[in-house]
Amino acid sequence: MPSVAPLDASKLTVELTKQPKELPPTSSLVFGQTFTDHMLTVKWSLEKGWQAPEIKPYGPLQLDPSSTVLHYAAELFEGMKAYRDKQGRCRLFRPDLNMRRMNSSAKRLAFPTFDGEVLTELIKELVRVDERFVPDEEGCSLYIRPTMIGTRASLGVGPSTEVLLFVIMSPVAKYYASGAKPVSLLASTKDVRAWPGGSGAYKLGANYGPCVAPQLEAAQQGYQQVLWVLGEDDEVTEVGMMNFFGAKDLGNGAVELFTPPLGDIILPGVTRDSVLALARAHADPSNPFRLEGVPDKLVVSERRVCMPELRDAARDGTLREVYGTGTAAIVTSVERIGYEGADVQVPVEGDGGFGPVAGAFYDVLQEIQYGSREFADWSVLV
Amino acid sequence: MPSVAPLDASKLTVELTKQPKELPPTSSLVFGQTFTDHMLTVKWSLEKGWQAPEIKPYGPLQLDPSSTVLHYAAELFEGMKAYRDKQGRCRLFRPDLNMRRMNSSAKRLAFPTFDGEVLTELIKELVRVDERFVPDEEGCSLYIRPTMIGTRASLGVGPSTEVLLFVIMSPVAKYYASGAKPVSLLASTKDVRAWPGGSGAYKLGANYGPCVAPQLEAAQQGYQQVLWVLGEDDEVTEVGMMNFFGAKDLGNGAVELFTPPLGDIILPGVTRDSVLALARAHADPSNPFRLEGVPDKLVVSERRVCMPELRDAARDGTLREVYGTGTAAIVTSVERIGYEGADVQVPVEGDGGFGPVAGAFYDVLQEIQYGSREFADWSVLV
Repeated sequence: MPSVAPLDASKLTVELTKQPKELPPTSSLVFGQTFTDHMLTVKWSLEKGWQAPEIKPYGPLQLDPSSTVLHYAAELFEGMKAYRDKQGRCRLFRPDLNMRRMNSSAKRLAFPTFDGEVLTELIKELVRVDERFVPDEEGCSLYIRPTMIGTRASLGVGPSTEVLLFVIMSPVAKYYASGAKPVSLLASTKDVRAWPGGSGAYKLGANYGPCVAPQLEAAQQGYQQVLWVLGEDDEVTEVGMMNFFGAKDLGNGAVELFTPPLGDIILPGVTRDSVLALARAHADPSNPFRLEGVPDKLVVSERRVCMPELRDAARDGTLREVYGTGTAAIVTSVERIGYEGADVQVPVEGDGGFGPVAGAFYDVLQEIQYGSREFADWSVLV
Repeated sequence: MPSVAPLDASKLTVELTKQPKELPPTSSLVFGQTFTDHMLTVKWSLEKGWQAPEIKPYGPLQLDPSSTVLHYAAELFEGMKAYRDKQGRCRLFRPDLNMRRMNSSAKRLAFPTFDGEVLTELIKELVRVDERFVPDEEGCSLYIRPTMIGTRASLGVGPSTEVLLFVIMSPVAKYYASGAKPVSLLASTKDVRAWPGGSGAYKLGANYGPCVAPQLEAAQQGYQQVLWVLGEDDEVTEVGMMNFFGAKDLGNGAVELFTPPLGDIILPGVTRDSVLALARAHADPSNPFRLEGVPDKLVVSERRVCMPELRDAARDGTLREVYGTGTAAIVTSVERIGYEGADVQVPVEGDGGFGPVAGAFYDVLQEIQYGSREFADWSVLV
């Protein structure tokens, strides 16, 4: 990378909209379909580096029809949220992890990287400008979508010499409007989301588009989402667009919480990382932190999980919970998994289907995100 | 798919540019960077189906920043060419194969499909409008890029309820400006382009963006392109963005021409299909068609090829040729393949490095494409 201008928040220019939108009632919100008044854009070119960041009215991008983003999936994104606390202040949740992953995705696409703290500062400024869109209702938040796209106008496949970084924001209600409900999964033994040597560990657009048709096939078979499995062992990788977690009894009151390890296949989810950190704090006798309702004897494992293990554990009654984690819904419980022509039944409890483990994470993560509980430096004031 | 309007060429509207470009000298052309005066666009929506096709001046697309193409790689494309024959007429090469593959890609993305003959008719009309851009120099042509992108303005991952089909065109010189030269490949045992259960057999943008960084790594190690290999056997799949072909001696003057079989991994290339058809015609004693310079005893195989076989055949002197095929360069010879820390040396001949097999295909395909030789109904007058 030549020595060119770095991303610089001090160069920010702000052009406010002359036509502010009416605030939508949170009851009307569909995920990712309503946007705030403004967006952040920053151009980058190989010659000049990062140009001056701009906050300006939300509106269409003008792209040459030969732009690499439209032909070769030269694109990556992040998903994060701003939450309003009881004092009315806005908060981000572990933005450093989003920035680290965004830079990791950028390297994977041979895109430019940037100082994550600078982009966090710019995102905070965008949130301040559109602060009225951060809902103050329980479970609601402002979804933030940082994105990078290749804008070089050329059909040659090669490195992106021009890139546009932009951030748009969308006020969102609770992900499951009528309350959290456990979902059904179809274990996909035909379609594969990610593979060794592929790009599954990065948040690239390329990992998402090809998942839509398998998702529709699962729906036609009566399942809500796809459980992505890999290889001859039917190794469990991800749940729809979420990370996978399971819990099972080890006997003597001990419970194992398990999730597939990071590597080539698994997206390093912010919620995944947070669940693991909370679980390890709970399991550490020297740490006073406790997750209410979760057994004291909690074994936290990042390890291979295969479908036959889940099926057998469901049969012998040791399978306690299965759930997915992600920024959008935080925790989503699973009630059954279609596998080899039959359903693996997973125990579910209560309205949201949350067992004690998933339920504890769901509650504690929200407490931290909305600023009513502290943990490490995870919640960051805007 | 509900009963909505089909793609209809009779609804075409044409708006001619008021600022026609100056014709670029072919010597100045870089692949895919110069475009003609006009483009074709057709909108599709779930409610209305295909709207009226438009030919209009080439210019930027206005896209909502939440469009699915910018976040989830909701995009596919085709590559084809218009050639000018000795009578000055324009010709397409096997456009039916491009249309079939484009519809196959569309299904893979849960995009709408269309009547391929109708889109071919619309593309012909676009070529007629911009006919002056079809070069009449040997080896030059007009590259045609049909594209489909998801334009639904929503961050929810799901089927594309709005799609834009567009076609842009770019006059191109010979792919290798200073004459065809054999290239070097690095067999990638770390990065994998496509995998069983993935989308490698479809021409999706998602298959291209993640290949750029591995390509740069190969270049840093002194190789021009990546040879994509898969699995523990180091199974050969594709060459950069081209299909793979090899030729080896079977003894007694017989030569085997081999290429990996179609399936989940291999893009069904138009040039690949054409090479196989020509080779089979040549190998068929009842068919009068002959490829000049190619041994009469030609065995044509679609079969697994692994790197150890190529390495061993290079060592024992039976490896005759290795080359890639594609629309852009037709045939590209390979002179060495970096594999497990050493180079597999491939025999090359003459200026272009074409052995007798690759050279014969290179010549015959151009004769057919430029209309100086007939084969089946492959060359189609515009």
